[in-house]
Amino acid sequence: MCGILGVYSPLGNNVSQKVMLGLFAEQHRGQESCGMAITDGTKIDLYKGMGLVKDVFTPKVLSQLKGNISIGHVRYPTRGSSTNKNSQPHVVETLFGPTYALASNGDIVNYTHIRKELEAKGVFFKSTNDGELILRYIVYLVEVEKKSIPQAIKEMMKNLKGAFSTVLLTRDTLYLFRDPFGYRPMSYGKLADGDFAVASETCALDILNPIYKTEVQPGQIIIIDKQGLKKSDENFSHKNHQHCVFEHIYFSRPDSTVFEKDVYEIRKKIGRELAGCDKDLNVDMVVPVPDSSNVIALGYAQAKKIPFEFGLIRNHYVGRTFIKPTQSVRDESVSQKFNILPDFFKGKRVVLIDDSIVRGTTLKKLIKIIKHAGADEVHVRIGSPQVKFSCYYGIDTPTKNELIANTKSLEEINNYIGSDTIKHLNLKKLKKVVEDDKNYCFACFNGDYLVK
Amino acid sequence: MCGILGVYSPLGNNVSQKVMLGLFAEQHRGQESCGMAITDGTKIDLYKGMGLVKDVFTPKVLSQLKGNISIGHVRYPTRGSSTNKNSQPHVVETLFGPTYALASNGDIVNYTHIRKELEAKGVFFKSTNDGELILRYIVYLVEVEKKSIPQAIKEMMKNLKGAFSTVLLTRDTLYLFRDPFGYRPMSYGKLADGDFAVASETCALDILNPIYKTEVQPGQIIIIDKQGLKKSDENFSHKNHQHCVFEHIYFSRPDSTVFEKDVYEIRKKIGRELAGCDKDLNVDMVVPVPDSSNVIALGYAQAKKIPFEFGLIRNHYVGRTFIKPTQSVRDESVSQKFNILPDFFKGKRVVLIDDSIVRGTTLKKLIKIIKHAGADEVHVRIGSPQVKFSCYYGIDTPTKNELIANTKSLEEINNYIGSDTIKHLNLKKLKKVVEDDKNYCFACFNGDYLVK
Amino acid sequence: MCGILGVYSPLGNNVSQKVMLGLFAEQHRGQESCGMAITDGTKIDLYKGMGLVKDVFTPKVLSQLKGNISIGHVRYPTRGSSTNKNSQPHVVETLFGPTYALASNGDIVNYTHIRKELEAKGVFFKSTNDGELILRYIVYLVEVEKKSIPQAIKEMMKNLKGAFSTVLLTRDTLYLFRDPFGYRPMSYGKLADGDFAVASETCALDILNPIYKTEVQPGQIIIIDKQGLKKSDENFSHKNHQHCVFEHIYFSRPDSTVFEKDVYEIRKKIGRELAGCDKDLNVDMVVPVPDSSNVIALGYAQAKKIPFEFGLIRNHYVGRTFIKPTQSVRDESVSQKFNILPDFFKGKRVVLIDDSIVRGTTLKKLIKIIKHAGADEVHVRIGSPQVKFSCYYGIDTPTKNELIANTKSLEEINNYIGSDTIKHLNLKKLKKVVEDDKNYCFACFNGDYLVK
Amino acid sequence: MCGILGVYSPLGNNVSQKVMLGLFAEQHRGQESCGMAITDGTKIDLYKGMGLVKDVFTPKVLSQLKGNISIGHVRYPTRGSSTNKNSQPHVVETLFGPTYALASNGDIVNYTHIRKELEAKGVFFKSTNDGELILRYIVYLVEVEKKSIPQAIKEMMKNLKGAFSTVLLTRDTLYLFRDPFGYRPMSYGKLADGDFAVASETCALDILNPIYKTEVQPGQIIIIDKQGLKKSDENFSHKNHQHCVFEHIYFSRPDSTVFEKDVYEIRKKIGRELAGCDKDLNVDMVVPVPDSSNVIALGYAQAKKIPFEFGLIRNHYVGRTFIKPTQSVRDESVSQKFNILPDFFKGKRVVLIDDSIVRGTTLKKLIKIIKHAGADEVHVRIGSPQVKFSCYYGIDTPTKNELIANTKSLEEINNYIGSDTIKHLNLKKLKKVVEDDKNYCFACFNGDYLVK
Repeated sequence: MCGILGVYSPLGNNVSQKVMLGLFAEQHRGQESCGMAITDGTKIDLYKGMGLVKDVFTPKVLSQLKGNISIGHVRYPTRGSSTNKNSQPHVVETLFGPTYALASNGDIVNYTHIRKELEAKGVFFKSTNDGELILRYIVYLVEVEKKSIPQAIKEMMKNLKGAFSTVLLTRDTLYLFRDPFGYRPMSYGKLADGDFAVASETCALDILNPIYKTEVQPGQIIIIDKQGLKKSDENFSHKNHQHCVFEHIYFSRPDSTVFEKDVYEIRKKIGRELAGCDKDLNVDMVVPVPDSSNVIALGYAQAKKIPFEFGLIRNHYVGRTFIKPTQSVRDESVSQKFNILPDFFKGKRVVLIDDSIVRGTTLKKLIKIIKHAGADEVHVRIGSPQVKFSCYYGIDTPTKNELIANTKSLEEINNYIGSDTIKHLNLKKLKKVVEDDKNYCFACFNGDYLVK
Repeated sequence: MCGILGVYSPLGNNVSQKVMLGLFAEQHRGQESCGMAITDGTKIDLYKGMGLVKDVFTPKVLSQLKGNISIGHVRYPTRGSSTNKNSQPHVVETLFGPTYALASNGDIVNYTHIRKELEAKGVFFKSTNDGELILRYIVYLVEVEKKSIPQAIKEMMKNLKGAFSTVLLTRDTLYLFRDPFGYRPMSYGKLADGDFAVASETCALDILNPIYKTEVQPGQIIIIDKQGLKKSDENFSHKNHQHCVFEHIYFSRPDSTVFEKDVYEIRKKIGRELAGCDKDLNVDMVVPVPDSSNVIALGYAQAKKIPFEFGLIRNHYVGRTFIKPTQSVRDESVSQKFNILPDFFKGKRVVLIDDSIVRGTTLKKLIKIIKHAGADEVHVRIGSPQVKFSCYYGIDTPTKNELIANTKSLEEINNYIGSDTIKHLNLKKLKKVVEDDKNYCFACFNGDYLVK
Repeated sequence: MCGILGVYSPLGNNVSQKVMLGLFAEQHRGQESCGMAITDGTKIDLYKGMGLVKDVFTPKVLSQLKGNISIGHVRYPTRGSSTNKNSQPHVVETLFGPTYALASNGDIVNYTHIRKELEAKGVFFKSTNDGELILRYIVYLVEVEKKSIPQAIKEMMKNLKGAFSTVLLTRDTLYLFRDPFGYRPMSYGKLADGDFAVASETCALDILNPIYKTEVQPGQIIIIDKQGLKKSDENFSHKNHQHCVFEHIYFSRPDSTVFEKDVYEIRKKIGRELAGCDKDLNVDMVVPVPDSSNVIALGYAQAKKIPFEFGLIRNHYVGRTFIKPTQSVRDESVSQKFNILPDFFKGKRVVLIDDSIVRGTTLKKLIKIIKHAGADEVHVRIGSPQVKFSCYYGIDTPTKNELIANTKSLEEINNYIGSDTIKHLNLKKLKKVVEDDKNYCFACFNGDYLVK
Repeated sequence: MCGILGVYSPLGNNVSQKVMLGLFAEQHRGQESCGMAITDGTKIDLYKGMGLVKDVFTPKVLSQLKGNISIGHVRYPTRGSSTNKNSQPHVVETLFGPTYALASNGDIVNYTHIRKELEAKGVFFKSTNDGELILRYIVYLVEVEKKSIPQAIKEMMKNLKGAFSTVLLTRDTLYLFRDPFGYRPMSYGKLADGDFAVASETCALDILNPIYKTEVQPGQIIIIDKQGLKKSDENFSHKNHQHCVFEHIYFSRPDSTVFEKDVYEIRKKIGRELAGCDKDLNVDMVVPVPDSSNVIALGYAQAKKIPFEFGLIRNHYVGRTFIKPTQSVRDESVSQKFNILPDFFKGKRVVLIDDSIVRGTTLKKLIKIIKHAGADEVHVRIGSPQVKFSCYYGIDTPTKNELIANTKSLEEINNYIGSDTIKHLNLKKLKKVVEDDKNYCFACFNGDYLVK
């Protein structure tokens, strides 16, 4: 997962501060590194750094980034190398200077094939990153085959398979485009001061004071230049889409509107659906694994009319480092990340809510300390179906055999993590929640990979 | 506000990792800088840095800090200079090497007077920090007047007025002591592996797996050395104490037990008391200013049986930098820190809960965006009485005339921030909540400074 | 002044160590910054840094620079900005990666005109450096006008006026070329291990163990690739050349052979010619301003059969910093740079030798301390005619009115610097020394600028 | 070898610039690290760094070092660890702040014994450096045994054996003292502006504009405070001294006066004595191994009336790095350090002058390249007797069996290095040169270690 951002100021405002603020609002989509490319029409400056937006884009750095068109990116720590090389935006330079910059969120399924094709033609790669592939593919068509940029983007859309929500900047134009299945979110809007902005999530537009905000459609190309904002006539959208349902369940911020639905509402509904399956369960309280399950738990509590409680306290200073976590670090960090209330669980029957189960190790530890604190019962409720398949569209899921749902039955999982009962929201109910069974990707639950 | 930590391992375990973990759990008490002093019996090593515990105490740094006795500190950005000099622990060195190290949370009221006395005797100061004063006062008595360390601590207790929860380390002993009024919290415990630990808050002991935890009593001196843990015979405690009630309301983590009361429970009770004053108020939901008011709001919602909602979403990446905030930065950062749910407040009557009002600027902005989002009514409820006086016991309150409660009537405040109604928990009810009207300091509400 | 270097290894040896050694031997030609570009056939790596060769190219840095073709550069602190931007080599990158690298010693007289022409065509410049102009001029012809590199170099030679001793590297070929007047030195050779090397001075080839060394002819283009070393058929040399005579007098190391003459011999002859003019002068000793005038003074002493003495001791640690000197620093640094022998000059008649006079400030100070030490007479002899004109071919002479020879008569200079007598080697004698009056540039003495 | 410096300004001038300049003039005595301690009467500031004086004491650093009493040090790369810990000055801190600072040049022979004694008393050491031992020995006597500083210095002089030229600073006084045998040089003087300065060599005083300069006598203690400069009544000098004769031959700068003799004159005399042994030798020229043998070779040439020639050119940029040299680096660096003139030695008979032979590896390489260049004969003449014993008084000689004079006969050495003949100045002649056979240490030649 990653986050993208772009701003175009027709009035020539310096937009670096806006890009920083937008990236800051998308920090939850990637804490490993961040970067910004900006142009004032004569050159393109690039600044990237490992770490958080506020630490990389200090006031001093920002004061040196000037221009009216800019794109930015926050990067998630993936299994690949955590180096500045793989961080975005990518820039292609020519005799005429830095000429193209691009930032993308997603994953190209036929990466290896396309890269080999380009390398055979002499194209040079500096990273192993999908965004660079998209960029060099387009630039090859423009520079060597002499196509226009919009033509090149269209051809890219036909040949590169996978997920991409992408911004491309030249010295005078900002291009936005999104893969034809619309895997990852992407919205744009016009700001109160006349600037245009685009972001992965609407919460990043909100911080910029938008007068309207709307989705970049799957397969759509939008061009913003001094003549204003122009949508491509053609639309490469597939009839049905493949929105990542986990954006609703986990990735996106609850204050974002994603795939035209409010994330907060979806999560409340997930909670309500879970509660609907527990009509006969007598419990004293609902406790979320904070913060990602807070809203699901709230929905459950309201539906079941039992108290919602912050029984687990999360240390928000966890996970600010860009050093890549090993398993041993992950294990240790459960107790660093969560603590329980003292004298709170004694004799209590608890419903513990989480959004999903990957390895099960965190839940196992949490249940242990809750029971150790005297809880009589701990019932685990999960806001999604069992995750059994890896994601090829931008999420760094572990390999299949690291997923507990592939190696243990649900009953074995119940025993393993030490819960009294365990239930998942099933796929049918999830489809009911999103009110759509045609436009979402559920591949991590059912293995139906539409794009390969 | 700051946080202290100490560990003594009778079995000779390396304790640097524990001190780091404990400081990490107390990170909310100070994000500006942190430090650790550690001894292996032959020398005392000191490591300090600006920034967060996880960024300063990297695995590489930790691997070089070795010893079985150690103290640590996290420092809050105060108005004084944000330099490494003022960060703690402080160390005094002699011909015999670094000999004494100390970390303290609090504020010495007669700092200037005592410092002048010591300087007249030639004592040298490297910082303007209270902790250094306590340390050099003690060391003067030991090195020049040839008193024992416990005697010196006792004499210090008699002459230095103010708040101090302090740890002092020599090459073979760990000393814990707390001012006779017990302004700031301080607890110690024995860990499952036989080590002793001390911390500002119990949540920092929890991460170290304690088998028991208990308070260092006001005016108590505890000595831990190879003969074990020994409490001073004398106790310098005043009959009544002066616990800072804001530790319950705001500073401490909700999973801590402070002044022998569970913080979470106190906050729930504050919410219930507030709800008790609103019997006739018809509203649709309760929304906290996250995260500090979450539990108060939950208590209110449960008592009043109306929905608790996360209507404001907090960006947890705010405030990770140690650059000192100016007013202009503070203003801008409200929108960076908080965003509202889309399409959520339209036509709603909202109770907005906050723990306290200092300048009123944050609430003013939040109410503005909530009303702009269509809320019909916004009723502000504050979990504490009006803050009208500065704190001299460890909190960096602004000067009196920056406190809105001193310059405006409550009605004027209601107009200024744009709420429909505003109510504070009054002092009487607050005393009822803490079930004690003799052992707390309420000076920031009523100006009754016991120690001057 | 600057120094260039290049190595091509047909056998695929890693040549980074050789380039470092060669640059190190040319360090006297530039201490401000240095850099290296190297290719292994698949990519071009570039490493540049401010400061000395040994400090920039540490063993760690060198171990990461791998390839069989490489060029390098040392840069002199000129009046322009002392930043990494202006340091060389320059690299031009395309979609196909870094593709061309170039390093040059010299100065392009029609820089502004050519740059404007290129910029009008959209060519982008990162620096204000002559080398970059040469590089982008060539690359423009290759990339846009689709000429071959040798054709492009030829066209460059016709249109760019000035001095350039240049190396150009692609992923498979090393190009050497020198301006048609041969202003600056440039020699190449074959090494004992089969590699080819090129350098500004032969002393830099010596360190690489050459089996032969010879000059790159003025106007010559040499191409080294896997088919070996090939000289261009055409030669763009002018009939007469414009070798910088100051390379003999001052710039080059005394162990170099420059313009096919041994520098040490030339300097000895200058000394002898100066002595020839002093037949009637009775003095006790000859003292050089070390180190640049050592050999001239030795020639003088041997011819006149009076003792050569190291009466002034130079601190060799001066001038290692890349901070640009201001006048006030220059003034102060005379006493830091030179000290006199104690009890040495008392009652002595001294001939003080220097290579040239620019501002006269250093000599003024030296004579003052020598006289203060008791010398009876100080006669100044200068190994070159009076410098009255600025250089446009690679030397950073001050502006005309800073040259003392333009503002004072020789007699006034004698008074100003406090010498008893002063004599310059006149131009006729200098021509006699170099045995050539057609192939040298004497413009700084007589203002005859052939290339404008 | 190392260099010390000290300045006291009675008028309260800021002296940091002077200390920097003096250290800079002593840079040849140590390039590994340098440092300065300075006091303004209220505190002592310390600044140390690895590398050269000009790189460590940048204008920015200097501007923050303020005070009227200061000491400094340059350190030579010895076999011990090249870390900041071992660099000087050392400072001892107490409750009353940094109170004592010391810098010393020399070596304490009974270091281990004295250190153990002090450690048994609890004294703490931060380094393995002799200077720290002297400092802590004195401070122990002052702080614990309550002696005055002059008394403590006297007692130190009685008990610490070895070489030390030392400066000690408190907040109001500068102490100078030198071991009773006067192994290492040390001079002080009064400056034109009224300040007092002390240095290892007079060349470092010269740069400060002295009105007089004179030696600190062996065993003498000098105290400079606001009452002026005061010499101790007692003098601990031994009747005969043990001046290191290599200070004349090699270490000191030729413009220094050392042990009351001018270094330049001594070296000229060495050359003359060598020439006196070569009456029947017919040769064409004398060539020094630059720079250390320049003056010896000049003396030889003048006496023998044959031409002195700079046949070997030294690269002055060698050896600026503080990375410690290994043997392999030393080997390679001969060709980096020296190059020969082209076409110069053909058919020539050469006397090659060096100051001493340690391992013989450098000479072997130089003779090889000179012969390879066509010289008919190379006669080696050495300005000192054979070095057969290690030094315990401040010089980092290799162990005995690394000294070629211990493993080979002179004839074998002649064969090994490839010279035609080889001669050393014998001890008797060396004594004649220094006109003294009682006050010098010749232990490295004859093994007569007076102090053990």
